[in-house]
Amino acid sequence: MQTEKPSPLNPLNPEIIIAAHQRIKPYIHRTPVLQSRQLGELMGAEVFIKCENLQKVGAFKMRGAANAVFSLKEADRKKGVATHSSGNHAQALALAARLAGVPAYIVMPKTAPKVKVAAVKEYGAEVIFCEPTLQARESTLEEVVARTGATFIHPYNNEQVIAGQATAAKELFEQVEGPLDVVLTPVGGGGLLSGTVLAARCFSPATKVWAGEPAGADDAYQSLKAGKLIPQSAPNTIADGLLTSLGDKTWTIISQGVEQIIPVTEEEIIAAMRFLWERMKLVVEPSGAVPLAAALKEKGVLKGKRIGIIISGGNVDLSKLPF
Amino acid sequence: MQTEKPSPLNPLNPEIIIAAHQRIKPYIHRTPVLQSRQLGELMGAEVFIKCENLQKVGAFKMRGAANAVFSLKEADRKKGVATHSSGNHAQALALAARLAGVPAYIVMPKTAPKVKVAAVKEYGAEVIFCEPTLQARESTLEEVVARTGATFIHPYNNEQVIAGQATAAKELFEQVEGPLDVVLTPVGGGGLLSGTVLAARCFSPATKVWAGEPAGADDAYQSLKAGKLIPQSAPNTIADGLLTSLGDKTWTIISQGVEQIIPVTEEEIIAAMRFLWERMKLVVEPSGAVPLAAALKEKGVLKGKRIGIIISGGNVDLSKLPF
Repeated sequence: MQTEKPSPLNPLNPEIIIAAHQRIKPYIHRTPVLQSRQLGELMGAEVFIKCENLQKVGAFKMRGAANAVFSLKEADRKKGVATHSSGNHAQALALAARLAGVPAYIVMPKTAPKVKVAAVKEYGAEVIFCEPTLQARESTLEEVVARTGATFIHPYNNEQVIAGQATAAKELFEQVEGPLDVVLTPVGGGGLLSGTVLAARCFSPATKVWAGEPAGADDAYQSLKAGKLIPQSAPNTIADGLLTSLGDKTWTIISQGVEQIIPVTEEEIIAAMRFLWERMKLVVEPSGAVPLAAALKEKGVLKGKRIGIIISGGNVDLSKLPF
Repeated sequence: MQTEKPSPLNPLNPEIIIAAHQRIKPYIHRTPVLQSRQLGELMGAEVFIKCENLQKVGAFKMRGAANAVFSLKEADRKKGVATHSSGNHAQALALAARLAGVPAYIVMPKTAPKVKVAAVKEYGAEVIFCEPTLQARESTLEEVVARTGATFIHPYNNEQVIAGQATAAKELFEQVEGPLDVVLTPVGGGGLLSGTVLAARCFSPATKVWAGEPAGADDAYQSLKAGKLIPQSAPNTIADGLLTSLGDKTWTIISQGVEQIIPVTEEEIIAAMRFLWERMKLVVEPSGAVPLAAALKEKGVLKGKRIGIIISGGNVDLSKLPF
C-alpha cells in the first residue's frame, strides 16, 4: 500500500501557517477589520472588511515576501533574494529583504512605470531592467540568480509565500467574534486565495471560500469550471494586480478548496472601489475592490450571512483614478 | 471663603468622560490606530495615527453627537434634536438621532452642496433651508426649536459634545502601549481639541496637547497668543471643517490646557493629505490632515518623541481633489 508524501502545506498541517505568522509578526501590520453600517444595510448581511491595503507596502504581498525571506537558511538568506515583478510583490520583497539586511534583485521590464521603479529602489533593492517579454524576463532572472546566488522568490507559486498570505485570513478569523459563513478574496496568481483556503481549513473549517475575479481576466473562473488549469491569455481589466495566470501550486489548493469564483465587470469593480473610498474612507486599488464587487453581485445569496472580505491592496496612482 | 462651582467637565472629573464613552460605545466605532514605517522615518519619531476618518459618518463628530443625544432625558429626547450645520456635525446628529429613534431637524443654508443635503436626508433627518446668513440661520433654528420642542445641540460649544469628543483621545491612550509625549488634533470650533485636553489631563497627564490650524483660519492661534478669545473673520482655507471660531466653553479649556497651536499653510495641508492618501491609504479630508502637517512642520522639536495624531475626518468630494 502506497502513501503519498504529504505536502508541507497540507490543510491538516496548521503548524506551517502558525509558524509563518509567528515568523513575520515583527515585520507586518496586524491590519484592522472594519465594518460599515451602510455596507451591512446594502448587503443585508454582516460584513467584515480585512484591510490589507493598510498592510506594509500597501498590500498583503508583504506577508508572503516576509515569510519567504525569513524562512531562508542563514547562508542562503545572506546571498539575497530575486524576483521578476513590477507590482506589489516587488516592493514587498524589497522591503522584506531590507528588514532582513540582505540584498534584493528585482527584474523589471524597461517599460515599467517610473513610480514603481522608484518605489522598489527606495526600499534599497537593485533593479535590473529587461525587454518587456516573458522570455527576456526569465532569462534575465536566471542570469541574476547565477551571478549573485540569490534565491528566486516567485510572487505566488511558492509554498512559503502561500503560507505567508494565509496569515491574512488567519488574523481575520481571530479578529472577528464568531464564525464567518463565507470569506472572499480577489484572485490573480492565486497566492492570497490559496492561502485563504488553507487558513479556513485549519482555523475556520465551516467557512466557505469564494473569490472575485475580473471578467476580463477570468482564468481562475474558467479553470474551476473546466476542472483543469487554463492559463490566462490577453487579459483586459483595470484590476492590474490580477492579470496573471494561476500557478500549479496555487491551482492545486484552489481547485480543492474554493467553492465558487465570481466574475465581475469593470463597472462593478469601479463601483465597489468607489464605495470603499467614499463610504469607508479607504484607498483601495481596483484589484482590492474585486471581492467586494463579487459580494455585492451575490448579495441575494449572501443575505443574512456573516461575510469576510479581504481587501488586497491600496497602491494606486492618484492622478489616474477611474472616477 | 468662597468655592467656585466646579464645571461638570472639570479635568479632575474623569467620570464624565468615562460615562460618555460607556454611553456611546454601542453607536460608534473604536477606530484603529495605525503606524507607518515611512512616517516614522520621516519624523524621526514614533507616530500613532488615530483614524477618526474611519469613524461612523466619516468623522469624530459622531462621538459628540451620540453623547449629546443619548444624554438627553427620555422626555426631551423624544422631541428630537436640532442644529445648524452643513458639515460633519449635521450628518452625525442625524445618524445619532436615527439610532435613538428620534427626529433630527437640521438647518442648512439653501446654498449648501446638494451632496451634503442628500447625506443628511439619507440619515432620515428633516432639512430646513434658510438664507445663507448668520442671522437667518439662528432665527430659523429658533423657529424650529419653538415649533418642535427639539433640543439644540451646538456643534462644539456644548459640554456633552465636548465629553463625547474626548473619547477619541481616551481610546488613543488605551490603544497605544506606553505614554505619548504629545498628542495633536486640528482645531476649528475646538470641540475635539478641548475634549483631547480633558482626556489627556484625566488619563495621560504627562502628554502635552498641541493643535494644528490653517494659517488662513488661525483664530485659535491668535487667541492663545493674545490670551483672550479672538473670533475668526474672513477665513480662507481648503480645510473647510476648520472655518469657525472657538466657543466660550471650548476656549476656556483650550486656553488652560493647550501648549501650542501651529499654523500651517495650504501647501503643507495638501502635502500632509497626500501623504495620508498615498502612503497610508487613508481617505482624509483637508481638515483631517492639518495636525499631521503641524507635526511635520515641527519635526525638529518632535524628534525621538512618541506622538499621537488624531485624524478628524474623511469626508471629501472625490471629484474635487487638490492633487
